[in-house]
Amino acid sequence: MPSARFIQYGLGPIGTGIADLAAHQGHRLVAVVDIDPAKIGRPAAAFISGAPADVVITADAATVLNAGADIVLHSTQSRLAQVFPQLLPLVDAGLAVISTCEELAFPWIHHPVEAASLDALARSRGVGVVGLGVNPGFVMDLLPVILTSPCRDIRRITVSRVVDVDLRRVPLQQKVGVGLPVEEFRRGVAAGHLGHIGLPQSAAMIAHALGWTLNRIDETIEPVVGRNDVVQGVHQVCRGTHGTTGEIILDLTMAAGAQNPRDEIAVEATPPIRAIIAGGIHGDQATYAIVVNAVPRVLAARPGLLLPTQLPPVAGTTRT
Amino acid sequence: MPSARFIQYGLGPIGTGIADLAAHQGHRLVAVVDIDPAKIGRPAAAFISGAPADVVITADAATVLNAGADIVLHSTQSRLAQVFPQLLPLVDAGLAVISTCEELAFPWIHHPVEAASLDALARSRGVGVVGLGVNPGFVMDLLPVILTSPCRDIRRITVSRVVDVDLRRVPLQQKVGVGLPVEEFRRGVAAGHLGHIGLPQSAAMIAHALGWTLNRIDETIEPVVGRNDVVQGVHQVCRGTHGTTGEIILDLTMAAGAQNPRDEIAVEATPPIRAIIAGGIHGDQATYAIVVNAVPRVLAARPGLLLPTQLPPVAGTTRT
Repeated sequence: MPSARFIQYGLGPIGTGIADLAAHQGHRLVAVVDIDPAKIGRPAAAFISGAPADVVITADAATVLNAGADIVLHSTQSRLAQVFPQLLPLVDAGLAVISTCEELAFPWIHHPVEAASLDALARSRGVGVVGLGVNPGFVMDLLPVILTSPCRDIRRITVSRVVDVDLRRVPLQQKVGVGLPVEEFRRGVAAGHLGHIGLPQSAAMIAHALGWTLNRIDETIEPVVGRNDVVQGVHQVCRGTHGTTGEIILDLTMAAGAQNPRDEIAVEATPPIRAIIAGGIHGDQATYAIVVNAVPRVLAARPGLLLPTQLPPVAGTTRT
Repeated sequence: MPSARFIQYGLGPIGTGIADLAAHQGHRLVAVVDIDPAKIGRPAAAFISGAPADVVITADAATVLNAGADIVLHSTQSRLAQVFPQLLPLVDAGLAVISTCEELAFPWIHHPVEAASLDALARSRGVGVVGLGVNPGFVMDLLPVILTSPCRDIRRITVSRVVDVDLRRVPLQQKVGVGLPVEEFRRGVAAGHLGHIGLPQSAAMIAHALGWTLNRIDETIEPVVGRNDVVQGVHQVCRGTHGTTGEIILDLTMAAGAQNPRDEIAVEATPPIRAIIAGGIHGDQATYAIVVNAVPRVLAARPGLLLPTQLPPVAGTTRT
């Protein structure tokens, strides 16, 4: 695999995992941006194994634009409105971007004007920009789309993902409300702090690939409640309908002690397809790999704001 | 989906299914080539629902080169040496080609010179040429590659496909030797009449996507023997190794009454992935759809001889 020069933008748990893997795969870290006071000014090598000794973490993204990078691996926030001002200067400087921002996986649904301007800028600068990750970006959208490839007369696509967050990192447990009283959970959902971001984006991505127009996309976010009315996690269902016959149902449970963790994809079509990934795909590890494995694909892609479904298949990697 | 003008080249069971679906999806049939004396000179509409009344089946492919087609849907034989002389004039005439020829899915392994010349001709004529189908072309190669996308440190990929040929068409039962004495089965395998063609191609395609170099590819073809020493079908195993640590194992059983039909893909990596498609993907129906669904992708692809893994994801279709 050809080596790229990359900027790591965001050094939280996901960003650190991405940068570690990218350096491990032979890509060269040239700069790190993070706003955590505990990290600013410190050597990147204190956080990222394989980081060159001379790379120092900065909070000022403007100073890294001319660091000689090919691509930015971006992992800060989930909402497009949050990351949009971060991305524009990067793209304007001619840097390709892969971001784990959930809404960037399909920004056209909630932010069509921002998406169009980012697309136009990326085209004019000759670089690819794409939102990737395991979810959205793979297990509830790209993989179901690919599994429709042998199908005609598609009527319904149902994806169920069950994640036992006991097995995952603490921030994810907090994100899904583990341990909260139900009322606090509901306030968190209303405020947009709690729950998974990305189901409507995944539904829209599937619809786009199938050439469907979704009349509506509805999403429910409910607590999974355990003993003593304490929240164990979240159950979200997103449903999109195309005309009177086409339906996309995305059903996501992320809860402590969730039974039978798995990813399950059913395509009602000719022929029907039912695929089960036993145990489910581990989200964090998978996101690191999806981002890093996609680097050569994004650098070779046509310029513009791309969808995960518009890149040729990304293959995994062996130890280098 | 934009409509294409297509030539159907080969009107056996698979070719007829492809042409039917293509016409059903709104593509326009402009010519049909077949060498069956029972079909030559007859109206295509006698075999293909949705065929225009004025299309007459011809055995002379030279007469259809200027029929105004965009693409040829080609389904005749399994070996590259057989189809190579059929494909050259089509590509030379500037026609894109999707073929179900099994060896065309990865012709570089056994026929590198023919592959290079076909690639050069396709590039010079500005058209895409690709071998597609459910196997090779999807379930034992493209789908496993895509399932490695969330993975690092890949050590082994194992794909098991079990097909109960009682549920499939008679020519497929014959192809896998159902009802033959064991000695006749072995003679048929030695002569190349019996068994599935494509496992080495699938292994090579996976290796290519991963950037692996296979030291060797070994394939065994054994009969599945039932009562009274009568052959029930075939069990083929193809094993490719990369260095001392990388391994690809493709295990295919196609037999009458085969138990637990399924497609199962295991990726030993970080994270590990194990996917099961319950019942398995129905081969013939899936091949029709994969070919027809890929038409817009192939027409939009870069020119040259392409691999299934080099096209952006192909999505399935709804009834039009």
